[in-house]
Parts: sequence; C-alpha cells; structure tokens
Amino acid sequence: MNDVHKTESESTERSASKTSTRRADLRARLVAAGRAAIAEGGLQNLRARDLAAAAGCAVGAIYNVFDDLDDLILRIGADTLAHLEQGLAAPPGPAPEPAEELLRLSRFYLSFARANKALWRALFEHRLAGGRPAPAWYLEDQGRLFALVEAPLARLLPDEPAASRALLARTLFSAVHGIVSLGLEEKLAPMSEAALEGELERLVRAFAGGLTIRRTGEDPWKD
Amino acid sequence: MNDVHKTESESTERSASKTSTRRADLRARLVAAGRAAIAEGGLQNLRARDLAAAAGCAVGAIYNVFDDLDDLILRIGADTLAHLEQGLAAPPGPAPEPAEELLRLSRFYLSFARANKALWRALFEHRLAGGRPAPAWYLEDQGRLFALVEAPLARLLPDEPAASRALLARTLFSAVHGIVSLGLEEKLAPMSEAALEGELERLVRAFAGGLTIRRTGEDPWKD
Repeated sequence: MNDVHKTESESTERSASKTSTRRADLRARLVAAGRAAIAEGGLQNLRARDLAAAAGCAVGAIYNVFDDLDDLILRIGADTLAHLEQGLAAPPGPAPEPAEELLRLSRFYLSFARANKALWRALFEHRLAGGRPAPAWYLEDQGRLFALVEAPLARLLPDEPAASRALLARTLFSAVHGIVSLGLEEKLAPMSEAALEGELERLVRAFAGGLTIRRTGEDPWKD
Repeated sequence: MNDVHKTESESTERSASKTSTRRADLRARLVAAGRAAIAEGGLQNLRARDLAAAAGCAVGAIYNVFDDLDDLILRIGADTLAHLEQGLAAPPGPAPEPAEELLRLSRFYLSFARANKALWRALFEHRLAGGRPAPAWYLEDQGRLFALVEAPLARLLPDEPAASRALLARTLFSAVHGIVSLGLEEKLAPMSEAALEGELERLVRAFAGGLTIRRTGEDPWKD
C-alpha cells in the first residue's frame, strides 16, 4: 500500500465518520424536538413538519435517520425509560428490606409519572402501526427496569424460580401502574395525592406480605 | 275545564310524548351506531357524519339529542359498563369465600376485556375536552361496579371503615386493570393467555392474603 492509497483511505474513513456524526446529531436533535412536542401536547402533538423545523432539517431527512415516525417515537420512549431508570436506581448502602425497596420503587414511579405526565402516558398510548410488536432493543430497555423490581423479589422469595420471579416483577409493576394511571387520569372519581400514595402503599405491603406468607408461613405483620 | 280544553291538552301531551319517544329512539340509534364504530375501529373511528348516516339523521340532529360527541361517547361507555355489570353479577347461591369471589370478578373482567377489546379500551382512552371531570351520572354507573368488589372485601375485612373499604375496592380494581391492560396490549413482551390468568390469580390471592393477615394475624395459606 503506497502513501497515496493510504491518504485516500484515511480521507474516506474521515468522511464516513463525519457522516455518521452528522446522522447521530440529527437523530439526537429530532428526539429532543419530539420529546418537547410530546411533553407539551401528547403524542397527537407530534408532526413531522414541526419536528423538521425544530431540528433544522427537511421533512424527508427524518426518514433518512429513522425508519418511520414509529421508530422515532420508540426512541423517545427509550429516552423516557432511561430517565425513569436513573431515578429508580438503588441509593448506595446496604440493601433495604424487600417490601421497603418495592415501596420505594413504586413511589418513585408515581412521582415520575406525575412530573412527566405526557411523556409517561405516551409510553403506553403509542401503538405500532399494524399491531407490530415492540422491537427487541426496546424490550431490552424495558427489561432493565423490570430487573430493578426483580432484585428485591429475589430477596423476598429466594426459592422462586427465575422465570416465575420475572413474571411476578411484571405483575407487580402492572398492578402499581394500574393504580398510578387510574389515579392520575380523570376516569375515576378524583383522588387526593395523599390518598393515592396511601393506596399504593396498601397494595405493595399487602402483596409483599401475602407472597411471603404463602411461601414461608411467616407472618410479617406480627409484632 | 271544558271538553275542548281537555282535548287540546291531551293532544299537546300526546305530541310532547311522541317527540320524547322520537328523541329517545334517535339517541338509542346513535349509541348503537357509535358502539359499532368503536367496536370496529376504536374511538378514532367515530365520525359524526358516519354516525348520522348509520342512524338515518342529519349531522346536526346528533347535537339535538346529545350535548356533544363527548356526551355520546360517555353514553356508549355507560352501555359498556352496563354489559360488564351484568356479567359480574354474583351467581345465585350462598356467598363464596371472599378471595374466590374477588378472583371470579377479576377473571370475568379479563375475559370481558378480551372479548370487547375496542369498547373496553375506549372506556379508558376517552378524555373529556378541556380536562373536564366525568359527570356525576357516569361516576354513579362506575360506582355500582365498585360496589361488586366492595361486597367480598366487606366479608374479608369486616372491621374496615366503609370509606377505606371503598378506596380499597378501587385499588384492587386498578391493580387488576393494570395487569389486564398491560397483558392485553402489546407494550410489554407478549404473554400467553394461561400465564396472564395465572398472574392475575397470583396478585389477587397474595393481596387478599396479605390484607387478611394484616388485620387478623391469621394465615390463610396454612393447611
């Protein structure tokens, strides 16, 4: 390989890397613009024309860096999940009692949903065109959140098989999500913040207590 | 009052009653048309023009018998709730064990949601314009469903104050709804029908068990 060839190859690499950086920049700008649009007015506020204007690109350029708007919405969702995950991460120190840890996770979920209502709502409202299932990379992002629920469940039920524990984490998350979502939306009679927090605690404590008793015959409520 | 006056008054009454029957007929036809439209394609499939065509009236006539489309959607929702209520009603015979009764109600809720997915989904997706709360008559219809959950809870926790029990019924419903809705939608990894039913049972039994123990110190899982 002579010097001329080397220079040409380096220049091609530099140019490829520049293109890839430009693409990554545009993707990030579009995700940020989409995030702001959803935060302001929900999923129905997401319009390709507005996104392109906010990100400073042509409408067609959106489809050079995302498969379609669904793909962009999933990336915004992943971004929301990442923020949620940061907040849910366990504080340093020894592992707390499982029921307390489950309660901490549930309370943070409620406060996150309250503070980021439109973005949180969009996670559940968005449906992929044609009823397609969510892609594997997105389910993997979700899985990391469920793992945070599985950890205290593993301490609560050390003999539970992993597959059953994974289902249980999802079940507890779904139950908490139901209470949070029906509590924050206006479909049932309105509920005070304190009442909602109290009910969340009642569910988590009764559920954790009931699970423990079933397994060990031990009564966690006895003094 | 002479005969002429009497006849006039009767004729006015007859005509008023005819108008009222016609209005009730049109309302019923519009609710039926709206129900069919939602069942076919969800809330976004509900269009005033199509409804008027299906019910055989002018578009403007919809607004003579309903305040607005939100009002019509609430009436369709009440109709869905009435069907759900019929199915949830307790079978004749002695009252079953509270946990079994809660499980029966939860299972029926799951099967109803599965069989009437679009109409059931519309109950929760629909939001009133301007964030208005649901009207009192609608909340009353909802309340009758919660009463069905309160009855077994009253047997499970006879000393629970009524207000706390009412909140608890709503909490359990919300938890079950969370499991059913995340289980039936495609937002999490797909789940088999049997697994979903198993998880619903796990939640209800652990919750009912945990509540009982907290109150009485009795272990329902002991042989």
